[in-house]
Amino acid sequence: MHTPTPLMQRLGLAHPIIQAPMAGSSTVVMAAAASNAGALGSLALGASNAEQAREALAQLHALTEKPYNINVFCHQPAVLDSERDRAWLAHLQPLLDEFGGRIAAPLKEIYQSFNADTQMQQVVLEHAPAVVSFHFGLPPADVIGALRQAGILLMATATNLDEARQIEAAGLDAIVAQGFEAGGHRGIFDPTKDEQIGSFALLRLLVQHTRLPVIAAGGIMDGHGIAAALQLGAQAVQMGTAFLLTRESNANASYRALLKSPRAQHTRVTAAISGRPARGIVNRFMEEIDTPAAPPIPAYPAAYDAGKQLHALAAARDVHEFGAHWAGQGAALIRDGYTVAELVHLLVQEWQAQQA
Amino acid sequence: MHTPTPLMQRLGLAHPIIQAPMAGSSTVVMAAAASNAGALGSLALGASNAEQAREALAQLHALTEKPYNINVFCHQPAVLDSERDRAWLAHLQPLLDEFGGRIAAPLKEIYQSFNADTQMQQVVLEHAPAVVSFHFGLPPADVIGALRQAGILLMATATNLDEARQIEAAGLDAIVAQGFEAGGHRGIFDPTKDEQIGSFALLRLLVQHTRLPVIAAGGIMDGHGIAAALQLGAQAVQMGTAFLLTRESNANASYRALLKSPRAQHTRVTAAISGRPARGIVNRFMEEIDTPAAPPIPAYPAAYDAGKQLHALAAARDVHEFGAHWAGQGAALIRDGYTVAELVHLLVQEWQAQQA
Repeated sequence: MHTPTPLMQRLGLAHPIIQAPMAGSSTVVMAAAASNAGALGSLALGASNAEQAREALAQLHALTEKPYNINVFCHQPAVLDSERDRAWLAHLQPLLDEFGGRIAAPLKEIYQSFNADTQMQQVVLEHAPAVVSFHFGLPPADVIGALRQAGILLMATATNLDEARQIEAAGLDAIVAQGFEAGGHRGIFDPTKDEQIGSFALLRLLVQHTRLPVIAAGGIMDGHGIAAALQLGAQAVQMGTAFLLTRESNANASYRALLKSPRAQHTRVTAAISGRPARGIVNRFMEEIDTPAAPPIPAYPAAYDAGKQLHALAAARDVHEFGAHWAGQGAALIRDGYTVAELVHLLVQEWQAQQA
Repeated sequence: MHTPTPLMQRLGLAHPIIQAPMAGSSTVVMAAAASNAGALGSLALGASNAEQAREALAQLHALTEKPYNINVFCHQPAVLDSERDRAWLAHLQPLLDEFGGRIAAPLKEIYQSFNADTQMQQVVLEHAPAVVSFHFGLPPADVIGALRQAGILLMATATNLDEARQIEAAGLDAIVAQGFEAGGHRGIFDPTKDEQIGSFALLRLLVQHTRLPVIAAGGIMDGHGIAAALQLGAQAVQMGTAFLLTRESNANASYRALLKSPRAQHTRVTAAISGRPARGIVNRFMEEIDTPAAPPIPAYPAAYDAGKQLHALAAARDVHEFGAHWAGQGAALIRDGYTVAELVHLLVQEWQAQQA
C-alpha cells in the first residue's frame, strides 16, 4: 500500500484521483460513483444556474456520504458586442444554409460567471461541499473568505506559474496544474495569453515555485500517468477524458463513436466553439469555422450560444460534426466498457503495479 | 541500483540519459563529457557541412571511447522563393534601420539537408558512430540501409503517432518522443502540421501504439522528470535545456543571463527565426517579427540566414534580443554552475532518490 499524500489525508481520499468536472459530460451519478469509489468526484456547475445547481447538489448529497468537489467558472463576465456577434453569425451563414436553419439573435450570455452570480454563491455556501474548485480565474476576496469560513477546501486551476502565484496569494488550499494536454476549457485567467505549458514542465514549475499541494491534470489516462504525476511532485491527479466512455458519462453516441475512432488522435485548442480556448477532437466546427479568415470570436459564452444552436441544427439533420467534442491529447488511449467504480479500481491497480 | 532498460543495455549506457544535440549550443566537449559520464553524448551536425563534421567527429573520437550519437537534419531541401524572401527582408527593414545595417540578399540555404548531402552521408558512414539520430524526418531508404549495414543504431524524432509509425516502418531502432515542451526545433516532418502534443500524452501514445523503445524529450529538467518519464514507459530521456548552463555549453553570456532571468518562464514556438517552428525564450525577435501582420516566412534555413544576420547586426550594437534563444518550457528550472559530468551525476542521484 501507499502512503497517502497530505492532500489525500486532508480530504480523506483512498486514492489520489479526482474525476474532473466536465460541464455537459460529467453527471451527478458520475461524481457520486467516483467519490464512493474512494476518488474525489466533481460536479461541474459552470453551465448551470442556481436553481439547477440546487437540484444537482441535492441529488449528489443523496448519492454519497463521501467528500466531493463543486466546480464553478470564475471568468470576467462577458462584454457583449452586437457588431461582433453579427459578423460572427454572417461567418456561420454558409453552414446555416446547409442545415436550413437560423440562429436566434442577439447572442446571449447563456450562463453567468460565478463571480457575478450571488445566488449561485449562496447555494454553494449553504451546501458547503468538502471542496470547491475555480476555473478561468478567481472569485472576489469576500467570496473566497466566506467559502473558507464555511470550512470548504478551495482550489483553482493554473496553467502557468503566474496564475499559480495568484492562487497562492489568494489564500487557496491547492492548485490544479492544467497542462496543455488537457481536454476541455483551458483554465487560463486571461484567454488571450496562453503559455501552452505541457504537464511535465508545468508540474515541476509549480511544485518547485509554490508551497501549495499541486494536482496534475492533462494527458493522464492510466496508472502509468498517475505514477508519473506523483513522481513529478503532484499530490493527486485530475482525470477527465478517461471518464468520458464510462457508463455514467453523459457523452452521446456520436461523441462516444468519435472517441473510439482514429480521429481521437487529433485534438486542437479552439476558441470558436464557446468563445474561450478549449481542447477537443478536430471536427468540422474547428476546420470550417476556426479559420484564419474568421472574424473575431464573440465573448464567452455568447459564442457558445451560437455554437450550441448550430450544433442542434446540424444534429437535427444527422450531422454530428458541430458538437463540443472536448477531449485531451491522450484521447486515443481511452478505455471503454467500464463503470466509474471499475475504472477507478483499474487505475489504482495499474498505478500500484508500477510501484511494486 | 536500477535494472538497465533494453535500450541502455544495447548501447552500454550506465544511465538512461541522452544529452540532446543542440546545434549552436552543444559542443564536442559537451558530448564527450556526457558520454564519459555514462550518459549518451550527442553531436549536432544539422548546421555543419561535411568538412566541419569530419573535424568535429575526429575531435569527439579523440575525447571519448564511449558510444555517442550524431544528429542530422532530414528535412526536404529548401525551395527558395526570391519574391517571398524580398517581402520578408522588407518586413525586417525597420530593425535593419534601427541597427544601421543591411542583410545580404538573396537569402541562402546556409546548410544542406542530410538527405541531399551525399558528402555528409559519406562522413557519417565512414565514422560509424554508435548512434545516428534524425530530426525533421527520415533520410531515403538506401541511406538508412547503408547506415544500418554499418551497424549504427538509428533513431528519429517523432512528435505524433503518425510520425512514430513512419519511423517504425522505416526499420529504425528507437523513437525520440519530442513533447511540445521541448526547446529548439520541433522535429515535425511537415512543419505546417503540428499536433503540439505534450510529453505526458505523447509518451503513452507511442509506448502503447509502437513496438520500438521510446526516448522521452521535452520538459525534463531533473531526476523527478527522469523518474516520471520512465514510469510513462520511456527507456531513456533526452535532455537539452538542462545542459545549456553547463561549463561545456557554447551558450554565450547574454543567452546565459536570459536563462537565469525570470524571462525563462516564457517560451514560445516560432518559425520566424529559422523558417521552421522552434521553441525559445520570448525575445524581441518573436515579439516584433513573428506578428499576425508578418508576410510568409522564407523556407528553412533561408529565414535563418536573415535571422542570423539580423542578430549579428543587433549584437554589434549590444542588443541581444535577436538571437535564437532556444529553450524548453522547463527553462525556469535550469541549474547553473555544473560541469556536464556533475550535472549527470546530480540527475542520477535525484532520480535514484525517487526510487528509494
